[in-house]
Amino acid sequence: MSASLSRPRVGVWLIGARGSVATTVVTGCAAVAAGLHPPTGMVTETPAFTDSGLPALSDLVFGGHDTLDCPLPKRAESLTAGGVLPPGVATAVAAELAAADREIRPGGPTPGDSRTEAELITAFADDIRDFAHRHELERAVVMNVASTEPASQGPGAPLPASTLYALAALRAGCPYVNFTPSEGMHHPDAAREAEWSGLPHAGRDGKTGQTLLRAVLGPMFAQRALSVRAWSGTNLLGGGDGAALADPAAAAAKNAGKERVLADTLGTVPEGEVHIDDVPALGDWKTAWDHIAFDGFLGTRMILQTIWQGCDSALAAPLVLDLARLTARAHERELSGPLGALGFYFKDPVGEGPSGLAEQYEALVGFARSLREAGPARVDESGDVR
Amino acid sequence: MSASLSRPRVGVWLIGARGSVATTVVTGCAAVAAGLHPPTGMVTETPAFTDSGLPALSDLVFGGHDTLDCPLPKRAESLTAGGVLPPGVATAVAAELAAADREIRPGGPTPGDSRTEAELITAFADDIRDFAHRHELERAVVMNVASTEPASQGPGAPLPASTLYALAALRAGCPYVNFTPSEGMHHPDAAREAEWSGLPHAGRDGKTGQTLLRAVLGPMFAQRALSVRAWSGTNLLGGGDGAALADPAAAAAKNAGKERVLADTLGTVPEGEVHIDDVPALGDWKTAWDHIAFDGFLGTRMILQTIWQGCDSALAAPLVLDLARLTARAHERELSGPLGALGFYFKDPVGEGPSGLAEQYEALVGFARSLREAGPARVDESGDVR
Amino acid sequence: MSASLSRPRVGVWLIGARGSVATTVVTGCAAVAAGLHPPTGMVTETPAFTDSGLPALSDLVFGGHDTLDCPLPKRAESLTAGGVLPPGVATAVAAELAAADREIRPGGPTPGDSRTEAELITAFADDIRDFAHRHELERAVVMNVASTEPASQGPGAPLPASTLYALAALRAGCPYVNFTPSEGMHHPDAAREAEWSGLPHAGRDGKTGQTLLRAVLGPMFAQRALSVRAWSGTNLLGGGDGAALADPAAAAAKNAGKERVLADTLGTVPEGEVHIDDVPALGDWKTAWDHIAFDGFLGTRMILQTIWQGCDSALAAPLVLDLARLTARAHERELSGPLGALGFYFKDPVGEGPSGLAEQYEALVGFARSLREAGPARVDESGDVR
Amino acid sequence: MSASLSRPRVGVWLIGARGSVATTVVTGCAAVAAGLHPPTGMVTETPAFTDSGLPALSDLVFGGHDTLDCPLPKRAESLTAGGVLPPGVATAVAAELAAADREIRPGGPTPGDSRTEAELITAFADDIRDFAHRHELERAVVMNVASTEPASQGPGAPLPASTLYALAALRAGCPYVNFTPSEGMHHPDAAREAEWSGLPHAGRDGKTGQTLLRAVLGPMFAQRALSVRAWSGTNLLGGGDGAALADPAAAAAKNAGKERVLADTLGTVPEGEVHIDDVPALGDWKTAWDHIAFDGFLGTRMILQTIWQGCDSALAAPLVLDLARLTARAHERELSGPLGALGFYFKDPVGEGPSGLAEQYEALVGFARSLREAGPARVDESGDVR
Repeated sequence: MSASLSRPRVGVWLIGARGSVATTVVTGCAAVAAGLHPPTGMVTETPAFTDSGLPALSDLVFGGHDTLDCPLPKRAESLTAGGVLPPGVATAVAAELAAADREIRPGGPTPGDSRTEAELITAFADDIRDFAHRHELERAVVMNVASTEPASQGPGAPLPASTLYALAALRAGCPYVNFTPSEGMHHPDAAREAEWSGLPHAGRDGKTGQTLLRAVLGPMFAQRALSVRAWSGTNLLGGGDGAALADPAAAAAKNAGKERVLADTLGTVPEGEVHIDDVPALGDWKTAWDHIAFDGFLGTRMILQTIWQGCDSALAAPLVLDLARLTARAHERELSGPLGALGFYFKDPVGEGPSGLAEQYEALVGFARSLREAGPARVDESGDVR
Repeated sequence: MSASLSRPRVGVWLIGARGSVATTVVTGCAAVAAGLHPPTGMVTETPAFTDSGLPALSDLVFGGHDTLDCPLPKRAESLTAGGVLPPGVATAVAAELAAADREIRPGGPTPGDSRTEAELITAFADDIRDFAHRHELERAVVMNVASTEPASQGPGAPLPASTLYALAALRAGCPYVNFTPSEGMHHPDAAREAEWSGLPHAGRDGKTGQTLLRAVLGPMFAQRALSVRAWSGTNLLGGGDGAALADPAAAAAKNAGKERVLADTLGTVPEGEVHIDDVPALGDWKTAWDHIAFDGFLGTRMILQTIWQGCDSALAAPLVLDLARLTARAHERELSGPLGALGFYFKDPVGEGPSGLAEQYEALVGFARSLREAGPARVDESGDVR
Repeated sequence: MSASLSRPRVGVWLIGARGSVATTVVTGCAAVAAGLHPPTGMVTETPAFTDSGLPALSDLVFGGHDTLDCPLPKRAESLTAGGVLPPGVATAVAAELAAADREIRPGGPTPGDSRTEAELITAFADDIRDFAHRHELERAVVMNVASTEPASQGPGAPLPASTLYALAALRAGCPYVNFTPSEGMHHPDAAREAEWSGLPHAGRDGKTGQTLLRAVLGPMFAQRALSVRAWSGTNLLGGGDGAALADPAAAAAKNAGKERVLADTLGTVPEGEVHIDDVPALGDWKTAWDHIAFDGFLGTRMILQTIWQGCDSALAAPLVLDLARLTARAHERELSGPLGALGFYFKDPVGEGPSGLAEQYEALVGFARSLREAGPARVDESGDVR
Repeated sequence: MSASLSRPRVGVWLIGARGSVATTVVTGCAAVAAGLHPPTGMVTETPAFTDSGLPALSDLVFGGHDTLDCPLPKRAESLTAGGVLPPGVATAVAAELAAADREIRPGGPTPGDSRTEAELITAFADDIRDFAHRHELERAVVMNVASTEPASQGPGAPLPASTLYALAALRAGCPYVNFTPSEGMHHPDAAREAEWSGLPHAGRDGKTGQTLLRAVLGPMFAQRALSVRAWSGTNLLGGGDGAALADPAAAAAKNAGKERVLADTLGTVPEGEVHIDDVPALGDWKTAWDHIAFDGFLGTRMILQTIWQGCDSALAAPLVLDLARLTARAHERELSGPLGALGFYFKDPVGEGPSGLAEQYEALVGFARSLREAGPARVDESGDVR
């Protein structure tokens, strides 16, 4: 039996598998694995993670659920036109896009869907198990990268779709990562199940732009004993996320995460609002303006403003790949429950952990170190057992 | 003998004692000590420093050198008109301003000054010793808060004034802090003397605005594996510092410190220049604009811009008070040589230490802790010995 | 009879007479008339208006209505503390502030007020007539500088207070200027009365910051045939106006004016929202951020951003003085109806006129010229008849 | 004889014909003529120019001089990769790019070139005449779109290349447009010749970004009687222009134009500097930050900042096409000397004219009208004589 056959392969099952983020994840993973691009933005490719036993990018296999049916290669083409993917890369990895596209199953519930919640969970879990079985995967990670859902309607309401998927992940025995502000494993029903399952999970709401900045600026003000009076922000974004977050209920979920960062790092909640505007003209690009009014010595009023112009999918995708690898390895090491050490990646992290980015990075590096120690024997890239 | 007489008092000898920073230091120290304002911006007033044995603000006694002769109360009045000091405070602490003013001695060398370097050093040291003696000070700290000098002209050139003052501090047995980019204790002659002296020193170039931001943003990009392509900046400032830094030689000294932060935190020196413009219309206010072009996943180009609008004197003054207290306490604890643990405060820190602000803060808090342990008995605010 | 007695004096009756704008108007008029400050921001003090026969600043007499009772001198003091008025000026013009304060009458309707609309109008008109009579005024102009009201509730609803005051102005035979977005003379009932009255009126909603910029940037894009895709904006403001405009109904009135400028100058309404946030920490200062996404040649996407940091009262006050003088002179020249030539000053101008600032300025200068021609003999500053 | 043969064709001879601007001009002209893109950014395609008798885009024939030898289709490819040209357009107009490429002749003087100035002028003029002859052009316009030259070294220095080309244009009987800050027709020798030639000329230095903004903001401050204290700016740009302008001598030429706009519109020259930084990482994109400190009523200090992010070639190209058409038509109408009515397009316009953009636009529209009146009979697009 050849070494390459013995390489353990790891599945990445994406909820929202036809979206911008998922398409960028699949395209980028193939492009970086093939050496077409350096792994910019992937923290797990830096030296601190070298010996942590993470699965290789070339060992990741993609599939997922989506309610849309635009084929991935076509989606990649439109992301190329929009400047999210560089010219040529989608063509270069056409085979990998087509392969992932074949592994996408219909999501739900769709309008008119008569299946019960239990039936949906079972169907989703079967899809995931089938995927893992056919590809002889060592394990698979389920990751929510779908558009943000409206905030939950409270007790008695039907389970949000994100929670159905989270429960399906548990049912299929898979670790779960929620990269969105949707409820997912935070729903009380799912949280209980998660605890019993012995599976690791992480989330929620990837920290990609404005909140990333807040996680370093908040501690700066606190450490310098400067008094933040008001922190106001406006986000302009197009793409699907812009439209989803124009819904005040969806925005509320997102803003809660943003505010948590300030409250935790400043020790108080300053004045100021956060707006999220849908601006379709911006396509996949987003602009975040922050205006921070603070007091210096003797009450002197000062102001810091920041303008962040980024491409959301390109910011999210390398973090999603990081999280897939880290969570898979955590599963291999038989860790369970909320992975608080991954707070570096999230606006509203599960488990315990610091809120400032620098301390979160330290926790992450410590986690990488802990994965390394006493790790089970693994087959490395060359096929040798070490 | 009354308790108040037995309180050890600590001198703060300011080089540039009639400047905006010095005036704000003296005014603010009195105002905060009197409870007129909260100690915003003073890190040493936060809980981490509670038991570090730092001198109380009310125990600081001010004096210094300057080549100008505008009285401090008058300088405070014009800072009030310029919005640096809040209305009323200069009047409220008029007695303290007048007291400090009486302790300011003529600096040098002034044009036409026929004294040798040795004579100047002796004269300055005598002034400092006389100040300490008359006030029965336990110790005094010498701090350079004067306008930035042009960068040194190389071997054989006369010693810059900042180095004369640094040597005078050593001669008088005082710890020394260089809050400016001027050469001071960095001159080879002074560095050698400092090593022999057994005195602690700190510096250089207070990190008050643009570089403070860079010290948190640089690590953020590095930790997220984002590739910074170009980091450009423009500073607009009026006041004396604007005029001084319009001199390219003076600006060169300052910019070296700014660049060091990026090189140390990013691991490379990105493209981009830093401009410092003298804009007298801005008075004591400064605006710093930074434009950071970085690559994300698959080379997607993104941009962060920051605009910092602050009052330089109000940013510097609380840090100067922090440094006076910390350095005095270090002297008391018989620490010597470069205080690398104070890198949190400086663009171009002496000694060894990290470059990111978060790690620098951690080092500072550790330093505060070390000052606390096994500290010699001190008289506390109530006059009791503990 | 002395020349000075024969000088015709003109009343300025301010609705919202104890607000920031009114206080700045009264203070500034006195300070400029006394030569304490140059007339920065007053267009009517530029050469184009020299011979237009406008009343002198020293001939303006102030009074007004307000529902608050904080005395003007006290209000001026707090504006000085907030940096709106320069130190010393409120004291220097204390007499003028006290004089205006004596002429402020209680506004309404206040909660629990049992007077009918007709009774209120009569009472307000009586106050104005009494003011004009006691001061032997040649004429008086009524100007709304009160906080913005919520948008009208439609047919059948009670008349908004701003309309009651507008009707009182007509009843008292006074020209009327609406510097706010409130309904005032735009209410159908008042509009009808205005037409019959033969009195001139102007408004509405002073163009002081973001919209001023839009009125020059909109034409720029149009003249260069650049295609604006999205124009988004956020306004942060404290003070009374921030609180008033945090009410969505009040903000709606204001935003309608802002949008009109874009629609009129661009010829289309681009994507994008405008937010108005109440940020008490900013006091009387406001920050407006605009983000304009536009297409260039071959669809290349480009972006302009503007950040305007100003003091609303200081921006409004000189325009209010301009409008008082221009409207008084229009009345003297027996002009009637909407003064479309004053569109330069307003977001949502009455009458006909261009929308770009440059053309509005041209119209204003033409108006100044027309006031000049064939004007009735007036007594000039020296008391001579010319 | 077919209609198409009878259509008068107009040559556009580009100095710097292989540069980004020239490549965008040739690509865009073909793409717009073919209906692939709307004429965004082309003022001459707006209704005000409909009957001005301008040559059709499809009647323009391109050629030019350059010292480089990268073929135009290859240049277009790299502009596509850099996001200046939209995907697909360069391929769609490959034939037109190849045709223009065949008409590019070697420029000069190149290093080691032994030809005298007179010989160079003769050679350049011969190239232009030959181009016009072979294509049976009705007329040809010579346009400088090359990189900025260092400012002239004063009397006695050799003629700058831009002036050699300008003299060649005169020799060949062609109108001349200088879209760069280089000396060109401004050199005293050339200016004299131009006067005698009876040919029209226009320039200099296209107003594409920061100065465009200044030309609307300057008048805004002046019209509102606001007092501008300091106007500071920083430009970051990559591409060839960034490198050229990093040379202080070249930047000096450019900055003179920028300052002229402020001096002319404000009536004074405010404090503040303009920096031009070469930032290769930005490619063909440029960012311009402006910081304007101004005084409002009673001296209240306020600030406006603008950030312009554009693609220089995409901003310049439509204006170059406009100018080619307008200058060709001016030549047809036998206008001569400096075309002051084209000041709308330039930082440092030749001839007489206003400085504010709105008045310049009005002058341009008037010029368009004057071209229309009594124009000689022309063959229109359909081939019919009208």
